Amino acid sequence: MSYTLPQIAEILDAILDGNAAHGPVTGINTMKSAGPGEISFLTNAKYSNEVKETQACAVICSEKFAGLPKEGTAALRCKDPHMAYAKALELFYQPPKYVPIIHPTASIHPTSHIGSNAHIGPYAVIGPNVRIGDNSVILAHVAIYEGVTIGNDSFAHAHAVVRENCRIGDRVVIQNGVILGGDGFGFAQDKATKRWHKIPQTGILVIGDDVEIQSNTCIDRAALGEAHIDRGVKIDNLVQVGHGCNIGENTLLVSQVGLAGSTEIGKNSILAGQVGVVGHLRIGDNVVVTAQSGIPGDVPDGSIVSGSPAFENKQWLRTIAVFQKLPELAKKIRALGNTEKK
Amino acid sequence: MSYTLPQIAEILDAILDGNAAHGPVTGINTMKSAGPGEISFLTNAKYSNEVKETQACAVICSEKFAGLPKEGTAALRCKDPHMAYAKALELFYQPPKYVPIIHPTASIHPTSHIGSNAHIGPYAVIGPNVRIGDNSVILAHVAIYEGVTIGNDSFAHAHAVVRENCRIGDRVVIQNGVILGGDGFGFAQDKATKRWHKIPQTGILVIGDDVEIQSNTCIDRAALGEAHIDRGVKIDNLVQVGHGCNIGENTLLVSQVGLAGSTEIGKNSILAGQVGVVGHLRIGDNVVVTAQSGIPGDVPDGSIVSGSPAFENKQWLRTIAVFQKLPELAKKIRALGNTEKK
Amino acid sequence: MSYTLPQIAEILDAILDGNAAHGPVTGINTMKSAGPGEISFLTNAKYSNEVKETQACAVICSEKFAGLPKEGTAALRCKDPHMAYAKALELFYQPPKYVPIIHPTASIHPTSHIGSNAHIGPYAVIGPNVRIGDNSVILAHVAIYEGVTIGNDSFAHAHAVVRENCRIGDRVVIQNGVILGGDGFGFAQDKATKRWHKIPQTGILVIGDDVEIQSNTCIDRAALGEAHIDRGVKIDNLVQVGHGCNIGENTLLVSQVGLAGSTEIGKNSILAGQVGVVGHLRIGDNVVVTAQSGIPGDVPDGSIVSGSPAFENKQWLRTIAVFQKLPELAKKIRALGNTEKK
Repeated sequence: MSYTLPQIAEILDAILDGNAAHGPVTGINTMKSAGPGEISFLTNAKYSNEVKETQACAVICSEKFAGLPKEGTAALRCKDPHMAYAKALELFYQPPKYVPIIHPTASIHPTSHIGSNAHIGPYAVIGPNVRIGDNSVILAHVAIYEGVTIGNDSFAHAHAVVRENCRIGDRVVIQNGVILGGDGFGFAQDKATKRWHKIPQTGILVIGDDVEIQSNTCIDRAALGEAHIDRGVKIDNLVQVGHGCNIGENTLLVSQVGLAGSTEIGKNSILAGQVGVVGHLRIGDNVVVTAQSGIPGDVPDGSIVSGSPAFENKQWLRTIAVFQKLPELAKKIRALGNTEKK
Repeated sequence: MSYTLPQIAEILDAILDGNAAHGPVTGINTMKSAGPGEISFLTNAKYSNEVKETQACAVICSEKFAGLPKEGTAALRCKDPHMAYAKALELFYQPPKYVPIIHPTASIHPTSHIGSNAHIGPYAVIGPNVRIGDNSVILAHVAIYEGVTIGNDSFAHAHAVVRENCRIGDRVVIQNGVILGGDGFGFAQDKATKRWHKIPQTGILVIGDDVEIQSNTCIDRAALGEAHIDRGVKIDNLVQVGHGCNIGENTLLVSQVGLAGSTEIGKNSILAGQVGVVGHLRIGDNVVVTAQSGIPGDVPDGSIVSGSPAFENKQWLRTIAVFQKLPELAKKIRALGNTEKK
Repeated sequence: MSYTLPQIAEILDAILDGNAAHGPVTGINTMKSAGPGEISFLTNAKYSNEVKETQACAVICSEKFAGLPKEGTAALRCKDPHMAYAKALELFYQPPKYVPIIHPTASIHPTSHIGSNAHIGPYAVIGPNVRIGDNSVILAHVAIYEGVTIGNDSFAHAHAVVRENCRIGDRVVIQNGVILGGDGFGFAQDKATKRWHKIPQTGILVIGDDVEIQSNTCIDRAALGEAHIDRGVKIDNLVQVGHGCNIGENTLLVSQVGLAGSTEIGKNSILAGQVGVVGHLRIGDNVVVTAQSGIPGDVPDGSIVSGSPAFENKQWLRTIAVFQKLPELAKKIRALGNTEKK
């Protein structure tokens, strides 16, 4: 595959600023690694200095970036450089293809239905009364328990697990080692013996369309009724979602986030890495929780919160600045006390 | 399955307060979703308001809850509503059944012994000299390494792994993706080359009766000798237990807790979500560690501790309240300093 | 296997101080559990008191440890007791052996190459164009995607996954449930619809020689180009390494550490348990980050940092000491304010 710079500019909806007479473009690379036959991208201001040294024939950048064009390197000015970068990668990338096949070693219960053009890999195990949609890909060692439904065009990577009766939408991506619908952490204590009695986890987990869940993440089923991960939610690696949570459209949970049971999160919110949420509370729409924060109570729509326990982000930034000077502060207070005593 | 309200009251050891003339009860549901043929439950005061709107014919609640009965909704007054809720779920729930079978694709070493009425699922791999007790269930893709023993009535979900020579008790539940007895993080540094030399992890892991371990949790084997998870311990998803830990009866480790090597925990303690423990220390009996705390040293029996590093919970609550006002505090100190200089 | 004490002293490069006339030594054990036919070790000063009670015939200790020898227990004085302990364990430990075999149930694509003396376990799945080196061991249910290369003498435990085109070096150990080369968390938001568009993760992950990666850890591939885990890096359980990270030689990542994308870490650094790093930054050589810290920006070579957000460790220790007394401090300030008003 190769394109001319004007072709690329058109595909990316970019304004080509600088030398358009360049030969065929055969790839995309980082500014450090790109050669003259490749384009590059500047989507994080931290790397602005690298445009000086890059040999890329053009760099995707914001509309007003002043560092380009330079000799040999045009600017591909975009309203949304991050989205243009995504689309440029797609131009040159050939994703692995999985042809329609049911591998002879796949163990598929006769009561299950596999859609047309599906790919079922070696040693996949599909239980009774499962329904898998058209064009879906189920790779090696995936275990689908009884009663599960998976929509069309979905993809389960090797070693994913979907537990009893859960429902997975269309175009869902489940990366390796993900456990969907595992039992929640529900136990009632016998007051006399102190022993914990298991509370049956009788509900299910429902995953909307266009959701992606990444490696080794665990999303528990509801103890009762349904837990929901709504359309377009994206969940990073090693995230914990306790039983009975509901997460609104397009919300992001970054790696190692932990949600205790019955957490409600609205739409378009972002929980950064290692955030913890105590459960039985609501985080609103358009909320941002910064990394490692702990959420002890409801968070209103549109908030940015930080800290453990978390509070308003701007106040937290001021607080942290003082915190780091606490020893000096304590000294001043001692000095004031001493002056007074004199 | 259906029951009358008086029957349910008797089974749950509850006092039925309100209309007992209702027809057959066919299920249990949340207060929001329950219809008039279902009962519901109030086990968390946060949801007290929902009793006003519920259509459930009866609600499990505490002995003195004042919000019930109301028209159409009786109270099922219980000493322990949480336990009653667990038992009510059991009344109406049909757990998946696994008939005694050894699936023809299971790879079982001839030197292993499988107990009577066991269920061994497709593509399970059972190594040499393994012993699996009566009525135990080993689902698809489970890998049991050589020399392992598993007791009676235990259950290993798909993709669980038990490493060499570990011993698992009776009625143990191992959820999906759990790794029991993996190598600990033991390396000795060569001072000259800075390289790390692997310390053989020669010990084992011993899991007591009635333990449950949830999805993708890792419990390492001892470097030497035995690590113990005692009877009735319950461990949530994505928990890390380093090598050589010992955890006492009925202790709970909530999701994403991390214990470094050689941590000792007593009985009936609770470590909430994302707690970290530095290892080579002892946390006593009946201890509560609140979420996201970090434990740097021994914790006496009966303590409640919080913070990173953690200290006594009540002092921590007072401290956190001041912490959030640090900018104002710093301002006051500056003002005091200025007054003085005048 | 048995050795005399002088033999052991020679093998461990230790000075035998005390009774060397003892009979054959048949094992190594903790000081509490060792009998008179076993040696023991003191590698952590916390356990110094246990030498008084131990029945071990000799104890590995530092060169100048004063508590030994005592009657019946010699000292094995070492320059590096931790390394001597590792070597003593090796003396008596027989690791599981895996004979060269390709299990008949392994699913190996005909275009793949398996080195001589390799062991491929039951239900392992090896995709097209894979190359596995000599003497490597691939256990049950391991999934190796297309185009992967694995060097000589490497070991993949049951349920490990290596994704498309990644390159693994020699003598690499991959523990159970590890996911190498999963897709990174890369999405570009469509500003109008708020939906997230997947950025293809087109790069690979390259693992150097002598790396060990422990259970259920996830290391993502690069979005573009290569991510590198350099020679001798050791990574504990449940660690998250985002896309496009580069980690220098002999660095340690302890359990549940999380690195966001494009993190650079130098050589010989240690990130303790549950540390989080925000990504797009550089942590230098010989850095120590203490447990649960959060790294918001670059960290220079040789630093020790703590806290969330992290700063210099000694200042943090002083700060934490004041922090725990904040309520008393606030009281003092109130008192000073009141005095002044009089």
